[in-house]
Amino acid sequence: MKFCSSCGAAVTLRIPEGDDRERYVCSACEFIHYINPRIIVGCLPVHEGRVLLCKRAIEPRHGLWTLPAGFMENGETTAQGAARETWEEARAKATNLHLYRIFDLPYISQVYMFYRCELENGAFGVGPESLESGLYAEDEIPWEELAFPVVRETLRDYFRERDSGVFPVKITGLEYQPRPPSSTQE
Amino acid sequence: MKFCSSCGAAVTLRIPEGDDRERYVCSACEFIHYINPRIIVGCLPVHEGRVLLCKRAIEPRHGLWTLPAGFMENGETTAQGAARETWEEARAKATNLHLYRIFDLPYISQVYMFYRCELENGAFGVGPESLESGLYAEDEIPWEELAFPVVRETLRDYFRERDSGVFPVKITGLEYQPRPPSSTQE
Repeated sequence: MKFCSSCGAAVTLRIPEGDDRERYVCSACEFIHYINPRIIVGCLPVHEGRVLLCKRAIEPRHGLWTLPAGFMENGETTAQGAARETWEEARAKATNLHLYRIFDLPYISQVYMFYRCELENGAFGVGPESLESGLYAEDEIPWEELAFPVVRETLRDYFRERDSGVFPVKITGLEYQPRPPSSTQE
Repeated sequence: MKFCSSCGAAVTLRIPEGDDRERYVCSACEFIHYINPRIIVGCLPVHEGRVLLCKRAIEPRHGLWTLPAGFMENGETTAQGAARETWEEARAKATNLHLYRIFDLPYISQVYMFYRCELENGAFGVGPESLESGLYAEDEIPWEELAFPVVRETLRDYFRERDSGVFPVKITGLEYQPRPPSSTQE
């Protein structure tokens, strides 16, 4: 951030009065520009024991597999956002949504929220941000080609808890995990 | 938003290619400025059966009672943010935090996340954003003078669930609730 989005003057990084951390403050109109964490909402869609995964057509992690998820938009609930992303990425209608896994990713200032859900009529397709999509049983999942640690953790937890039929909502803090070189796994 | 925070040129509201909703886009450098929901993190601090409340010294809802909560900051986890707010508003050290209630407030594009917690040594004070603070039993809580619906819901749920000792994590969508005129209740 270099310029004030309100008046167009230059901003400076300083600690406003009464605050305890640096903010971008406008040198002309004194407007304080706060930058806050963002929420990523997604679904773990299950149909007849299989989970819907999408192969990413965009960066980051182009060509790796993910659960449908993306940035939450203004004016929607987390569940609405998760269902919207499921439609956008996998052309699937999410039904019977239940909040399931939440992840803190403080090193990139993101909070992930995944919902368990079902697929209306078991139908799905391929949205513009995906190369392909498909339903995978536990032993068919491309575990070594998953795009993000949050996806792996959510899938792992789901298959571990599935037999019990009890899926408590849980929040987990993840630390930065560098991707090993010359491998698609992280 | 009127100006691009990256180059200072004027922004226009339009639907970028491949998108389906209006964004602020820079007329010069084409930067797309996304505006996303914000997370409010807070605590429900309990000590010897009483709940810690703060009387707000700031707008909105100046003079009404709240649980310590505020905007999550970049670089922290939701639990760290909730503990930070508890320190800032009530000079209390939150321990043994457990995620408890989550609220979608789509009409103001906010997601609230409250943690149940204990108070280290039962100690608390008054931070700069509070007029006073105190520990309240269920029948002492100023139910008619609570600042926000999310605070009332969280307190209600807590006292209802306390006897069972089971506090499942739950997410609730709240609709806009206009405040009745000539009343402090909403």
